[in-house]
Amino acid sequence: MIQEEISKAITDMKAKSPLVHNITNYVVMQITANALLAVGASPVMTFEKEEFEDMLSIASSLVINIGTLTSISIEAMHSACKIANKKNVPFVLDPVGAGATKLRTQTSIDIIKNYNPQVIRGNASEIMVLAGESIKTKGVDSTANVNMALEAGKHLAKEYNTVVSISGETDIVTDGNRVLYVSGGSPLMSLNTGMGCTSTAITAAMLAVSNPLIAASSAMCIMAEAGAMASKKADAPASFAVSFIDELYKLNISNASNRVRE
Amino acid sequence: MIQEEISKAITDMKAKSPLVHNITNYVVMQITANALLAVGASPVMTFEKEEFEDMLSIASSLVINIGTLTSISIEAMHSACKIANKKNVPFVLDPVGAGATKLRTQTSIDIIKNYNPQVIRGNASEIMVLAGESIKTKGVDSTANVNMALEAGKHLAKEYNTVVSISGETDIVTDGNRVLYVSGGSPLMSLNTGMGCTSTAITAAMLAVSNPLIAASSAMCIMAEAGAMASKKADAPASFAVSFIDELYKLNISNASNRVRE
Amino acid sequence: MIQEEISKAITDMKAKSPLVHNITNYVVMQITANALLAVGASPVMTFEKEEFEDMLSIASSLVINIGTLTSISIEAMHSACKIANKKNVPFVLDPVGAGATKLRTQTSIDIIKNYNPQVIRGNASEIMVLAGESIKTKGVDSTANVNMALEAGKHLAKEYNTVVSISGETDIVTDGNRVLYVSGGSPLMSLNTGMGCTSTAITAAMLAVSNPLIAASSAMCIMAEAGAMASKKADAPASFAVSFIDELYKLNISNASNRVRE
Repeated sequence: MIQEEISKAITDMKAKSPLVHNITNYVVMQITANALLAVGASPVMTFEKEEFEDMLSIASSLVINIGTLTSISIEAMHSACKIANKKNVPFVLDPVGAGATKLRTQTSIDIIKNYNPQVIRGNASEIMVLAGESIKTKGVDSTANVNMALEAGKHLAKEYNTVVSISGETDIVTDGNRVLYVSGGSPLMSLNTGMGCTSTAITAAMLAVSNPLIAASSAMCIMAEAGAMASKKADAPASFAVSFIDELYKLNISNASNRVRE
Repeated sequence: MIQEEISKAITDMKAKSPLVHNITNYVVMQITANALLAVGASPVMTFEKEEFEDMLSIASSLVINIGTLTSISIEAMHSACKIANKKNVPFVLDPVGAGATKLRTQTSIDIIKNYNPQVIRGNASEIMVLAGESIKTKGVDSTANVNMALEAGKHLAKEYNTVVSISGETDIVTDGNRVLYVSGGSPLMSLNTGMGCTSTAITAAMLAVSNPLIAASSAMCIMAEAGAMASKKADAPASFAVSFIDELYKLNISNASNRVRE
Repeated sequence: MIQEEISKAITDMKAKSPLVHNITNYVVMQITANALLAVGASPVMTFEKEEFEDMLSIASSLVINIGTLTSISIEAMHSACKIANKKNVPFVLDPVGAGATKLRTQTSIDIIKNYNPQVIRGNASEIMVLAGESIKTKGVDSTANVNMALEAGKHLAKEYNTVVSISGETDIVTDGNRVLYVSGGSPLMSLNTGMGCTSTAITAAMLAVSNPLIAASSAMCIMAEAGAMASKKADAPASFAVSFIDELYKLNISNASNRVRE
């Protein structure tokens, strides 16, 4: 059963405590690092090409998050992806704001085409843009219906032989054929910056111990469970954010795993 | 009445949920983004010139915050301001630490002279420095009396046809002629980094729906009300910061609006 | 007695409220700034060489933290250290992740050899790497026994005429001859990013009023006391982090000072 696979994967990740190399945006670095620590992984952040060979020799996986692109960071991302491919280090792409600017859309597509991420994790708008849908996103938020994105996700997953993870009220994870749904979370998650980025980083942590479909759905189960638990303790965004990280740390793996259905 | 204008402006901003483009310092990005989300706006942060045309086509306003300048960010700020002027996107300048270094003072003055910000939001020391007063600031904090800054603010507002918003125990907003005072807040605000920067970002959100004087004073009303409410729930800086963002989210618009007087 | 020296130093620091210039990593900027404010110091962060002369004319001390190196930041660090030496501004080096990559190890050693930091503050692995021990660190965490690092710390302190501060379950501070031990804290500290960096920044604040040995041990006393107090109020990482900053603010100086033994 999928629930058992996910439960085992989360347990394995915690036992391994994988080092996750993050090339991510400046806004979410602190919450991303703290979330990885809370779930039992180990974060490192570097954008300097000169240390990628060393870092990707000890890291178990890589995050590429385009939330605050610069010409220097784009070059660094290409360099890191190349090395990750060479060293068989799996990586996750988070195409933050794809569709909002040509630079974000094009950078995402370049990375997908050239380096084949194991997982692409975005919101519905971003995934639809990458799949060639002509939907304009409004900044980094998604207003599109998550279900509308399923076909786009399947298309993208098949075209690039990857797994697509679409966050929303119900999260959708697909490899192009199989589709997994994860429910839980809280509306307060979208009122905290970096929640999507956090799910991307946890996906990377899970890639250290499992295949892309299990990794992506496990991460969404962890997010959905912690979000649901935190929403019982807090009714406003900042106290919710504190509870959310606390709940990542206290995670009931069995309850988290049961948030998936096929 | 001014209170009614402010109440309407805050209501309008929440209805519009404007996208605010932030070019801000690295220290405060997370709290700025979370504060904008909590008040009902939508944040995006990018420093890459290549995407300014696209981003400022969908953004309602722009923040220029000089808290961590680099030669690259200065160039980016000029580029963004130019495009904002061309596209009639209003912007707010936060001259963080003006007076502490020549680079900060000069960069602030260059931006004011060349691009005419709709609002300049700083503390008393920063405003006095920009108005040509020879007062040395101690880093990014203000030790000068806010009231002493009123004349400097009026002078600056008239000279550059802008609105000046001066944060302090009592906040002062002026267009050079009219002067608005906002009271509230908490001494714990100055023990959290980014509170001034947050008021700047909220000012930008308000500029999406109202004129500069109303935008600047509405933002200070929101800050003052959330600060006063949070100070009832927390007696130390970090728990205060959590409560503050929560109170931004729960804002009582009527109470906030009543914090202003002419 | 050492306890009295530390108590006096902390009191002096709070009276002076020193401006600390931080060149630190992007992940921890917010918590570092808030921790400095909570203990009564004043933070400023800049990486732009052009303003170092001005900033180091008003700053009391400098932090060099290599957590997210870039070619630009390395150049900036050399420039700042040179100016700090010239102006007799004391500085602390935090060799984050030394041993994880050659770039981090080499940058740390270059800074130590060329500019003679007053204090080097790291975890056991980092200190052993810098002392020439061939121990591979796993990213930015330490798995090595802190006691094993004492000899490395003494060696490093003597070789470079500096003070070495090693954080761990028991913190160790040495000038090569004298050894001070600080106990307290909480295991939840290692589940929050930036706790080591925070102790480095507080060490810099203390350097504004005391000699390196007292400064380094005072900072660890402050951390240990706040950590111990916070662990009574929180049992998970994020609520712990909030309590930790609150406890820095509410610090009982006498209790903090009593956490040291010779």
